[in-house]
Amino acid sequence: MAQAPGLQLAERQAQIAALMRDGQARLCAAFEELEAQGAAEAETQQAGRFLSSTWERPGGGGGTSRVLTEGAVFERAGVNVSAVSGEQVPPGIASEHPGTAGNPYFATGISLVLHPRNPYVPAFHANFRYFDVGGDWWFGGGMDMTPTYGFEEDATFFHRVLKDYCDRHSLVYYETLKQACDRYFYIKHRQEMRGVGGIFFDTLQPGGPEGWEQAMAFVQDGIDTILAAYVPLVQRRMTTPYGRRERNWQIYRRGRYVEFNLVYDRGTAFGLQSGGDIEAVLMSMPPVARWDFCYQPEPDSPEAGLVAFLQPRDWVAN
Amino acid sequence: MAQAPGLQLAERQAQIAALMRDGQARLCAAFEELEAQGAAEAETQQAGRFLSSTWERPGGGGGTSRVLTEGAVFERAGVNVSAVSGEQVPPGIASEHPGTAGNPYFATGISLVLHPRNPYVPAFHANFRYFDVGGDWWFGGGMDMTPTYGFEEDATFFHRVLKDYCDRHSLVYYETLKQACDRYFYIKHRQEMRGVGGIFFDTLQPGGPEGWEQAMAFVQDGIDTILAAYVPLVQRRMTTPYGRRERNWQIYRRGRYVEFNLVYDRGTAFGLQSGGDIEAVLMSMPPVARWDFCYQPEPDSPEAGLVAFLQPRDWVAN
Repeated sequence: MAQAPGLQLAERQAQIAALMRDGQARLCAAFEELEAQGAAEAETQQAGRFLSSTWERPGGGGGTSRVLTEGAVFERAGVNVSAVSGEQVPPGIASEHPGTAGNPYFATGISLVLHPRNPYVPAFHANFRYFDVGGDWWFGGGMDMTPTYGFEEDATFFHRVLKDYCDRHSLVYYETLKQACDRYFYIKHRQEMRGVGGIFFDTLQPGGPEGWEQAMAFVQDGIDTILAAYVPLVQRRMTTPYGRRERNWQIYRRGRYVEFNLVYDRGTAFGLQSGGDIEAVLMSMPPVARWDFCYQPEPDSPEAGLVAFLQPRDWVAN
Repeated sequence: MAQAPGLQLAERQAQIAALMRDGQARLCAAFEELEAQGAAEAETQQAGRFLSSTWERPGGGGGTSRVLTEGAVFERAGVNVSAVSGEQVPPGIASEHPGTAGNPYFATGISLVLHPRNPYVPAFHANFRYFDVGGDWWFGGGMDMTPTYGFEEDATFFHRVLKDYCDRHSLVYYETLKQACDRYFYIKHRQEMRGVGGIFFDTLQPGGPEGWEQAMAFVQDGIDTILAAYVPLVQRRMTTPYGRRERNWQIYRRGRYVEFNLVYDRGTAFGLQSGGDIEAVLMSMPPVARWDFCYQPEPDSPEAGLVAFLQPRDWVAN
């Protein structure tokens, strides 16, 4: 027996919102476990713990930011979840999705940004989101990695895990979403990539009677893949010794992260313009960043090779 | 005897470009003198010196960036001068100035940004610029100040010098240009002012036979006023003792400076989009900036009062 569309919609919204909340809890628990490992190894650093901050949106809904600061492994780790609804879809969404203007909408998402302490551990970003308005719906999301030092085996591992994840759902996903990621995380004014890429999708809405369930399964598996794709690399690099040189380079490269987020990132621009919770929007900012005028790494140094290392390439060829 | 318009135009361009170059030389010399004073007082810090970097624009013209790094007084001081010309006015300019499209243009300007080491010394920004295209011309510019700690007497001094400067040229300038500055240097997503303001003008083109000479005199006097408005405040505060607390607050507040420049500043946006010399465009960035999640200064601390202190007000009422 077919369900009434309204009931089905409400059930779907509850299901996806629960997925996001549950993902936040599991991810934060896993990162705190990493912190305990890191603190045990480091001796001088204490394990970081997540603090929570909840905000409500006057129009309906709200969110919870969980942020860990000055940990043994992560200088900053943030995991945001939000679920908001309203009577009128925001103009920016309506203009990109014809026929949705004036309709009520629902949106939920999870986003996380990890800025590790050790310069050999790559920074990491992921988000997954769901939107429905007036009978239309779509999912978005992705994850990408931003190393300060380029290790072929790390980038290959990361992309291999992402390809396996994509292939479980569709054999065309990885190549398409990998290219979309390379197009998106580009710092145009520097002609540099932000990192080694990953996967990115803006409007996933498979057709067919099982379309919603298929997209939902892809996003659910994506949230589960975050830890599989990243944690082994953190464990591999988090005890590598480093000094002032590597630390300075890390903080300098974080300036590029700031430039990308404030100049190009659409989620950040939307958050700043829509007057959402500014601290949650800017949770993605690194704890500290440098700008050095006309800085060039020494020729043939490990630092000098990074920008070339980040050029888009096929990481899983074989 | 009237001059041919082309000859007059070329003479004007040479005159204003020379003013900018000469301003750069004098300003850098004055800041190096401040550095020598600061180094003599600090003992542990060496006087900073400006390094030069010259760039050429393939289409015509170029510029010189002069940057001082890690000085005794300034953590970073940058003074840029450029003079460029081309056969076709850029689309962004043409759209704002009807009738100029397709015409050759000439643009020259000076801009400076000073990020002091001592958190009690305010950061400072100024620029003056000139544009002509197809018989039309205009000047722009201004200067503003960004304290980390609010001192009434410093803001009053600064605005008093600016008002005296404006009043020498027109009694309506100060009030108008002060309000324009308050409108411009606003961090909308934070609902905060960037600093205590100053003066700002986008399109100054006085009419009448002496219009050009009047505007030129205002800009010339403006460049001369930079030192009068700012140097006494540097000298007043540069030896005030400070510790880690004040330094952290300074670096945190510099995050706001980064947010303004990358999200709102039109000159920065134009520079990033037009593919100019990126290091010269981003010379305005602070050497180092922090973001602390949900940071709030302690109630009733000197830091807690800053945002309220920066609210626009009449600094020269008496």
